[in-house]
Amino acid sequence: MSYATEKLSEEKVFKDPVHRYVHVRDRVVWDLIGTREFQRLRRIRQLGTTYLTFHGAEHSRLNHSLGVYEIVRRIIDDGFEGRQDWNPDDRLLCLCAALLHDLGHGPFSHSFEKVFHLDHEDFTQAIILGDTEVNVVLKKVHKDFPKDVAEVIAKTYKNKLVVSMISSQIDADRMDYLQRDAYFTGVSYGHFDMERILRVMRPREDQVVIKSSGMHAVEDYIMSRYQMYWQVYFHPVTRSAEVILTKILHRAKQLHQEYYTFKYHPVHFYSLFEEEISVEDYIKLDEAVVMYYFQSWQEEEDSILSDLCRRFMNRNLFKYVEFNPNKQMMDLMELTSLFKKAGIDPAYYLVVDSSSDLPYDFYRPGEEEERLPIHLLMPNGDVRELSRESEIVDAISGKRRTDHKLYFPQDLLEDLSTKKTAKKKIREILGI
Amino acid sequence: MSYATEKLSEEKVFKDPVHRYVHVRDRVVWDLIGTREFQRLRRIRQLGTTYLTFHGAEHSRLNHSLGVYEIVRRIIDDGFEGRQDWNPDDRLLCLCAALLHDLGHGPFSHSFEKVFHLDHEDFTQAIILGDTEVNVVLKKVHKDFPKDVAEVIAKTYKNKLVVSMISSQIDADRMDYLQRDAYFTGVSYGHFDMERILRVMRPREDQVVIKSSGMHAVEDYIMSRYQMYWQVYFHPVTRSAEVILTKILHRAKQLHQEYYTFKYHPVHFYSLFEEEISVEDYIKLDEAVVMYYFQSWQEEEDSILSDLCRRFMNRNLFKYVEFNPNKQMMDLMELTSLFKKAGIDPAYYLVVDSSSDLPYDFYRPGEEEERLPIHLLMPNGDVRELSRESEIVDAISGKRRTDHKLYFPQDLLEDLSTKKTAKKKIREILGI
Amino acid sequence: MSYATEKLSEEKVFKDPVHRYVHVRDRVVWDLIGTREFQRLRRIRQLGTTYLTFHGAEHSRLNHSLGVYEIVRRIIDDGFEGRQDWNPDDRLLCLCAALLHDLGHGPFSHSFEKVFHLDHEDFTQAIILGDTEVNVVLKKVHKDFPKDVAEVIAKTYKNKLVVSMISSQIDADRMDYLQRDAYFTGVSYGHFDMERILRVMRPREDQVVIKSSGMHAVEDYIMSRYQMYWQVYFHPVTRSAEVILTKILHRAKQLHQEYYTFKYHPVHFYSLFEEEISVEDYIKLDEAVVMYYFQSWQEEEDSILSDLCRRFMNRNLFKYVEFNPNKQMMDLMELTSLFKKAGIDPAYYLVVDSSSDLPYDFYRPGEEEERLPIHLLMPNGDVRELSRESEIVDAISGKRRTDHKLYFPQDLLEDLSTKKTAKKKIREILGI
Amino acid sequence: MSYATEKLSEEKVFKDPVHRYVHVRDRVVWDLIGTREFQRLRRIRQLGTTYLTFHGAEHSRLNHSLGVYEIVRRIIDDGFEGRQDWNPDDRLLCLCAALLHDLGHGPFSHSFEKVFHLDHEDFTQAIILGDTEVNVVLKKVHKDFPKDVAEVIAKTYKNKLVVSMISSQIDADRMDYLQRDAYFTGVSYGHFDMERILRVMRPREDQVVIKSSGMHAVEDYIMSRYQMYWQVYFHPVTRSAEVILTKILHRAKQLHQEYYTFKYHPVHFYSLFEEEISVEDYIKLDEAVVMYYFQSWQEEEDSILSDLCRRFMNRNLFKYVEFNPNKQMMDLMELTSLFKKAGIDPAYYLVVDSSSDLPYDFYRPGEEEERLPIHLLMPNGDVRELSRESEIVDAISGKRRTDHKLYFPQDLLEDLSTKKTAKKKIREILGI
Repeated sequence: MSYATEKLSEEKVFKDPVHRYVHVRDRVVWDLIGTREFQRLRRIRQLGTTYLTFHGAEHSRLNHSLGVYEIVRRIIDDGFEGRQDWNPDDRLLCLCAALLHDLGHGPFSHSFEKVFHLDHEDFTQAIILGDTEVNVVLKKVHKDFPKDVAEVIAKTYKNKLVVSMISSQIDADRMDYLQRDAYFTGVSYGHFDMERILRVMRPREDQVVIKSSGMHAVEDYIMSRYQMYWQVYFHPVTRSAEVILTKILHRAKQLHQEYYTFKYHPVHFYSLFEEEISVEDYIKLDEAVVMYYFQSWQEEEDSILSDLCRRFMNRNLFKYVEFNPNKQMMDLMELTSLFKKAGIDPAYYLVVDSSSDLPYDFYRPGEEEERLPIHLLMPNGDVRELSRESEIVDAISGKRRTDHKLYFPQDLLEDLSTKKTAKKKIREILGI
Repeated sequence: MSYATEKLSEEKVFKDPVHRYVHVRDRVVWDLIGTREFQRLRRIRQLGTTYLTFHGAEHSRLNHSLGVYEIVRRIIDDGFEGRQDWNPDDRLLCLCAALLHDLGHGPFSHSFEKVFHLDHEDFTQAIILGDTEVNVVLKKVHKDFPKDVAEVIAKTYKNKLVVSMISSQIDADRMDYLQRDAYFTGVSYGHFDMERILRVMRPREDQVVIKSSGMHAVEDYIMSRYQMYWQVYFHPVTRSAEVILTKILHRAKQLHQEYYTFKYHPVHFYSLFEEEISVEDYIKLDEAVVMYYFQSWQEEEDSILSDLCRRFMNRNLFKYVEFNPNKQMMDLMELTSLFKKAGIDPAYYLVVDSSSDLPYDFYRPGEEEERLPIHLLMPNGDVRELSRESEIVDAISGKRRTDHKLYFPQDLLEDLSTKKTAKKKIREILGI
Repeated sequence: MSYATEKLSEEKVFKDPVHRYVHVRDRVVWDLIGTREFQRLRRIRQLGTTYLTFHGAEHSRLNHSLGVYEIVRRIIDDGFEGRQDWNPDDRLLCLCAALLHDLGHGPFSHSFEKVFHLDHEDFTQAIILGDTEVNVVLKKVHKDFPKDVAEVIAKTYKNKLVVSMISSQIDADRMDYLQRDAYFTGVSYGHFDMERILRVMRPREDQVVIKSSGMHAVEDYIMSRYQMYWQVYFHPVTRSAEVILTKILHRAKQLHQEYYTFKYHPVHFYSLFEEEISVEDYIKLDEAVVMYYFQSWQEEEDSILSDLCRRFMNRNLFKYVEFNPNKQMMDLMELTSLFKKAGIDPAYYLVVDSSSDLPYDFYRPGEEEERLPIHLLMPNGDVRELSRESEIVDAISGKRRTDHKLYFPQDLLEDLSTKKTAKKKIREILGI
Repeated sequence: MSYATEKLSEEKVFKDPVHRYVHVRDRVVWDLIGTREFQRLRRIRQLGTTYLTFHGAEHSRLNHSLGVYEIVRRIIDDGFEGRQDWNPDDRLLCLCAALLHDLGHGPFSHSFEKVFHLDHEDFTQAIILGDTEVNVVLKKVHKDFPKDVAEVIAKTYKNKLVVSMISSQIDADRMDYLQRDAYFTGVSYGHFDMERILRVMRPREDQVVIKSSGMHAVEDYIMSRYQMYWQVYFHPVTRSAEVILTKILHRAKQLHQEYYTFKYHPVHFYSLFEEEISVEDYIKLDEAVVMYYFQSWQEEEDSILSDLCRRFMNRNLFKYVEFNPNKQMMDLMELTSLFKKAGIDPAYYLVVDSSSDLPYDFYRPGEEEERLPIHLLMPNGDVRELSRESEIVDAISGKRRTDHKLYFPQDLLEDLSTKKTAKKKIREILGI
């Protein structure tokens, strides 16, 4: 028996709150879970700063990665095996790609990527192909296997059916995170009938299609996504924490460039600041390390850095007002000027943050890309695009919704012991 | 209006996966939640190393503390208000004590307390009474209020009815953690009809009693506790992680005492090693800091420290066999000797771990204390101890169950390239 | 203390699968629940023939009535009490109207009303105002109270705020049945965050409005309704059972008019056939009685009546194909003629059934009426109609969807031992 | 392909609230579900009179029968297939026996069986072996198949492994009803980790055993059963309804024997009264028929019959007090005499009802039989009886609990307009 087909002597299971159990029978999968690069995902939260809004949202990306693997396993083992258009040789490739698809995520990806011009997808590729435990395991399958897995995740793999299982508008990734994030935040959105969807998924040439009898379950899934985006992922309090986090990173980088002497040297950040971080250094970066620095930097002499860190650690966040870029740019410029007068650096304390999505063409935070539509398999064997069949999806399809908010530290503006005039004027403009 | 009775202009709610919502109307409670000492509980996991067994168990003590507060709030607002034997002036005291009862927990309390001879209850007292943001808030109620809150938590407060709401065999603490830990681990134990229990709780002189019509709900609660202890809290894999964690702390302390030069100086641990840690230093200790060190120490030259840290970070845990102290002490001594021969230090790599509980007289890990029994309020107004009424509780009451396991690194014993004879002999004794 | 304000010495609770508990403290409510007219609702299923599609949907209207009462009670006791625009004197009126709003429903209302030209709303009025136990209880409150309750249910009551609690596009009635029907059928639709909606409902002059912060919960509720209509209420198999039921009633009435001698005389149906049923006779009609006759009529000599009854009792339903009235009327006429040739009476065995709804202007089966829109309460105190604020509701608002199906007995058409030519031609046209 | 192995062209599913979906692929199973004898189970409630206590408990035995089938299907298809000790030829036999195991249940079995000396198990046998649609389907498999299925249900089948799947202390029957009854009543008991139990069930010679790693899930299951018995099945209000139902049947039989002239002739009951009911007549008896009579008999001249029927239909039940047969027999005799004096016939209005169970040797109402213990499969391959391994099961094993209650019509005793002295004395003795 080859390593690729080796089974554990007894099936292993992980208790999972969302899928009840995650089942592992394949030796390769078991070995991948045991690698340090995969275990590191325990120290990266799935939802970044969301735990400051929804206190239950403390779950890690390892949690989610196991879930995506389990969904793909069920799609294949319970649904695809034995069907035309499905090649059983692709099974292990799908399982590995599902398990590893988020491997390159760093701490608070959204902010880190923006500030340091990183791309977690590049790191996923680099970890799979580099000098890592994951690579060692994958190579044991065969020498090109790491490349295949990497290509599936990068969506460049030749077999688009395989790609579509973890990257489409109704893939295992999205199905897991919607349910998982709903579970851990405790919101009542995010629920849809995944059991039904799994039952009606079919391999069809180069994509996964959905039997038209399952259309309503897919509609429900799309509505769940819409609600999760606006109720959870784009929650204004979460974005406030994200704004502060981004400004901490900006400030630390700025101070580094100005040769400021840190009490707590940001050793783990040097290569980030220089924007030439290695895979090895990247792997050492996790949210525990980041929190260690933020915790320590509360004692830095630089008052902006220490203040922002204290805000982040103690959840003393920025407040916000709605902001309309078409009408209020003059206000923003005046506010910028008034903040300076009030002794509050607008570069760090006055921030416009925008969120935007298309209900049936969502992007996840940090991802902007073209998305293939969902296709239905009609009783007569035809394949039709979802919005041509579903009136409700058609109604919302392509309707982009955008939201802008202006963030600021209300507590500083309420302290009228200094700069009273400027602060009063600011509060007047903000309407607070 | 005094600060003690001040209400928020609008009720605040936190979405909670277990209780749906946590409701806050009192200004004092809101201010306490905003303190740095309370926010710090976000960085202490509720279940220590359990997340290495049940990957969903990544929830923090802040999560749990809000839950206990909410239960006490419901007991009072929905049940006790207006009843004889209930003094409405005790409401705020109960809410604050509920919210703050775990304030002194440090990272991985169980292991840290054992190795460094700490007591989280002492720190809870010290934080409430010391120079902290929590103390400032409480003192605004009145100058003796911090002391009162501290005494309630310490169970020394004069009004035992108040004490019993957060410290009895069926208190808000236990009711929250059983349900919460069940939710996040995903196990099907831990469920009981809390709604029913809340409805039948009555204040009665110096204790909370349960109307006898709710006896079956209490039986179910006790069975849930039993199952959670053996299925979750005492899970052998969790204990394996705990064993390794303890040995890391022992090793670091040992190295410190031997003047070993750390690559990563354990600055945050010095006062722990000396067993003279201040409240201020203690507050800075959280699990992010601990993980930062463990992460870094993987690169230490000391091979025991780096090996143990790698095991912990990458979940390469010890395996175990059942151990009977009455029959197998000779085996243990022989194994100790053989481990030395095999070049594996038994002080760090051969560990007996014991768990023990009484189903209706449980202790929580790290707490050993006398527990008052649960009392039922009979229809005729009498009060009777639970096990005299419930045959099922009577049957299991006082039946202590103990479990001993012997932990060791199976992977090292499987490497027969060196010390083959000793290792073979060890494996023979262990039966692996 | 007057009867209107009398409280039970101890609160009564009913265990409810949807709301956990239904709480009763008011003597009047307790007495109404005990009347024979209310208890009769146990023998009327909430979802008519739906149990033949979703086997769990066997719940009664009593079940639902208690749920609507509980929701209204919570809206008032937990939300409205103490608010401006809310008159506490309206509480009991609301509770009684909620509890009794479906009192006039007969067995399988939808079909019975159509065939016998009844209106369950008229019977609700008649039972409340007539010589009934319910009337006796209500009159004890005060002599005009039955009239007030009847008017609230009829939506003619002067205080429109009171009316809107049980009759609006987001009332207690709809909130209960969506959740309850989802629970008992087991579908994953029908869930929305009622807790949140209850928290943001406000009395405002002559209507209940929703704080705009709860808009997303309302969107979710509207989507849930949409899904429940098409997935459950309009399910084609349920409609098949409904078609057969209607035809049984038509046949029995026809036979009665033709002086057919029944083996089992339809004593309980006589006044229905004559369309002059009294309240007293109506109350005796429940689904047990109807099933008794259908059960018995399986043995009638009239082959159409006995065949239809056997189909209904043994779930041997009609099959269906899509039907387009604009294009296929010619087909229908030809089929009618062919059915006659095949010896299958088209008046009973060839039926077009249509379902139609507006997602944000739904009608419930059997109800066609104007619906007031949902209003949001904006932060600045303004009131705005929902679809002007919600892009997703706007997108689907006013988009009517209609579905036509043609029902027929496939088994009869498959028996080619007789009338082979006609049957073959029929099957060709139907495409089966 | 033979009928026994014929598969449907496409799998059919039923939406089930407890198991999500019930899956049917086998033609035989599909055909059995379509028989009139199986469909009749829709008109027999699973929990008899329990709906008068828990209003959600309106679910039918068809509901439960599909659930037991689904569990057995999963045990076999997901667990047993391919294992040693499992003969794939037994699959269809198990599925059919599971589906049909309750086929002989009549309306309100418990009371009917007691009053008319029936046994639903005999009728199950008779229906399977008699001139029925079920028999026709089964015979198509092979001529002895009906007999085999009947023997499995009767526990006389030669292969005890097959028998134990639907008749043991942890069989599919019990696992379904505990969960289903908990779901529909809404109680929080009745939950246990069935997924886990299914995963650890193993065929082993002549029985199903449980891998010892699943012992805690089994303990939890046993506790769930205990709670369901005392909280739901033996609920005193349910028993009150049962008492009245039994007395209605007694009275009707008595009147029949006395040649009383019924307004509504109990045609369907004649053969019951004579205790010589045929299978054909039995099948026509369902709860709709019974309710039809009870509804009608409210108008009978016999005041006992009409009063009891009114009580049952309108839920005007008897009240109860605890009764100790060892101490209070004298009281009972005196009460009997006093009831006569008060003009209330004690034969119908003064009833002692007893419930009794063994937590780990339960009997279901109406079943008294020997039960085989649950066996654990130890890691070394040994098989051990559960209570020898589980301390908690051992503690409660064999501890019989019995409860006696005395039922009476409190409303009649409160009417002091007549027989004041006797009624006062009665109330004194009853302590009401």
